[in-house]
Amino acid sequence: MAQYIGIDLGGTNIATGLVSESGEILHKVSLPTGAGRGTEEILQDMVRSVHLCLEQTHLTTEDITCLGVGVPGAVDDSIGMVLRTSNLNWCQLPLTQILQERTNLPVRLANDADCAALGEVIAGSASNYDSAALLTLGTGIGSGFIVDKQVFTGWTGGGTEVGHIPMVYGGEPCGCGNRGCFEAYASATALIRQTKRAMAANPGSMLWQIAPTTDVVNAKTPFDAAQMGDSVALAVLDQYMEYLAFGIGGIVNLLRPQVIILGGGVSNQGENLLVPLRVKVAKYCYASKLIDPPQLVKATLGNDAGIIGAAMLGLNP
Amino acid sequence: MAQYIGIDLGGTNIATGLVSESGEILHKVSLPTGAGRGTEEILQDMVRSVHLCLEQTHLTTEDITCLGVGVPGAVDDSIGMVLRTSNLNWCQLPLTQILQERTNLPVRLANDADCAALGEVIAGSASNYDSAALLTLGTGIGSGFIVDKQVFTGWTGGGTEVGHIPMVYGGEPCGCGNRGCFEAYASATALIRQTKRAMAANPGSMLWQIAPTTDVVNAKTPFDAAQMGDSVALAVLDQYMEYLAFGIGGIVNLLRPQVIILGGGVSNQGENLLVPLRVKVAKYCYASKLIDPPQLVKATLGNDAGIIGAAMLGLNP
Repeated sequence: MAQYIGIDLGGTNIATGLVSESGEILHKVSLPTGAGRGTEEILQDMVRSVHLCLEQTHLTTEDITCLGVGVPGAVDDSIGMVLRTSNLNWCQLPLTQILQERTNLPVRLANDADCAALGEVIAGSASNYDSAALLTLGTGIGSGFIVDKQVFTGWTGGGTEVGHIPMVYGGEPCGCGNRGCFEAYASATALIRQTKRAMAANPGSMLWQIAPTTDVVNAKTPFDAAQMGDSVALAVLDQYMEYLAFGIGGIVNLLRPQVIILGGGVSNQGENLLVPLRVKVAKYCYASKLIDPPQLVKATLGNDAGIIGAAMLGLNP
Repeated sequence: MAQYIGIDLGGTNIATGLVSESGEILHKVSLPTGAGRGTEEILQDMVRSVHLCLEQTHLTTEDITCLGVGVPGAVDDSIGMVLRTSNLNWCQLPLTQILQERTNLPVRLANDADCAALGEVIAGSASNYDSAALLTLGTGIGSGFIVDKQVFTGWTGGGTEVGHIPMVYGGEPCGCGNRGCFEAYASATALIRQTKRAMAANPGSMLWQIAPTTDVVNAKTPFDAAQMGDSVALAVLDQYMEYLAFGIGGIVNLLRPQVIILGGGVSNQGENLLVPLRVKVAKYCYASKLIDPPQLVKATLGNDAGIIGAAMLGLNP
């Protein structure tokens, strides 16, 4: 049985796992990234995590088919290059060559959200499907698209940036420097902002019982208040899901994936989110009476998705 | 040399052509569609146009590799079915089987905008590229996407509907029943509406010299007034191009095509449109400093694109 190693390189941890060819994590090692450190120190710990993983499982590099790395930024796997990361401040780093020389393993790179999507398609919520879109509703909206169980990075590479498709021309400012992008309306950050605004406008809302100060509002706050029947929270969520559905509808109208996987903090609401969202998404899918809208599911692998997907990059050498 | 026949089935004409394998039209036949007629009469004229094309070129069916048909609606080529057309009122019509039986030719189907895109990639403005997005800025926004010189109809089929990606949540009503779709802001129809509104608000604008009544406003009107230096027309066009660029940016951020081809009435403005648009598109392409925005070109084949693309469906049997 072929075995793979995947590294999910995050801003906080270098999470490394030994993964079976069916996508099961057999062993896991985690080292702190120390994102403020120099590149060389982080590289050394990435290599160390691979060696630790091998030592602790009594394996050698000869037992491993491939080392895959999920990078929080833009990569070009065809030339083995990390183009840019935001957290780590890497730019034009030939990561494949560096890791190949230091581990003697074949190396594959992908964006971390693409890895998470691949993990969910190989071993998670979308394992019955070949084509999928993963949207992670977090600080922004990350995305990973999978076609024929392989990462899709756009027709000229560079990766998919679903957070920066249109939502409201000229609308809310976005971290990318433009205005009105999808993630400025449908990320967890956007939901928190929308909740705070509703609280400011509605001093009597039960939202204030759950979050006595707006500092403690998180993406769960409006869902908790909605459970209590608070009409302000219900209206916030209805509007938030409308934005989310409008964006998902646009993705469907262009790409027609078999399944949309939602990850990130907001997705933890599960069916509380998905039941109303399915109705709204159908409304925005063109010709939904002729062509069934895609399935809408919750990501199930959590943080493991990134490790599994990174390792599974080795399935298609 | 293999030869192909393509039918561009329009609301007005059944345009049929004999096409070489390099995408050159060798002979053309046109019959009126008579869209109000029954399906059987239209089918008979489609077959007649094929036979006329053969007779007039002294060929027989044995000289033809494939008959391709561009249909103004949704098709599923894998089952040979026209799912629905709007103009012709066809629904679930097994067009492939019907035409195969009556012409003795292998038959391929595609949406007409997909055919136009394929035509431009095989023999037109995008012949140096493998992946392209064609946007036709007309009554709505039609779209055709080509990957590896083949029609892309989404990962589960059904076709791409770029006119119905988001632009302004809750905005202008769209023909699809929703609000705020791309085509409600960036089609020729939308430009005409934006021009008329600006005229109503600005009685002194030179737009009134070009169009003495709003009934005669067309997509050329604001460009003509802008040429005269009219500030109202310049503002209308600047805003229109902003919408168009925001939508194109979204497509780029998701799909990264090598080239964007603009067709339809508005595209006749050529570089008057493209020069300012390129600047605006770059602004909306994520990481445009790292990843060059795609080329932006004008469709060059006009109505022939549909015939050529339909015929060229036969290149990939």
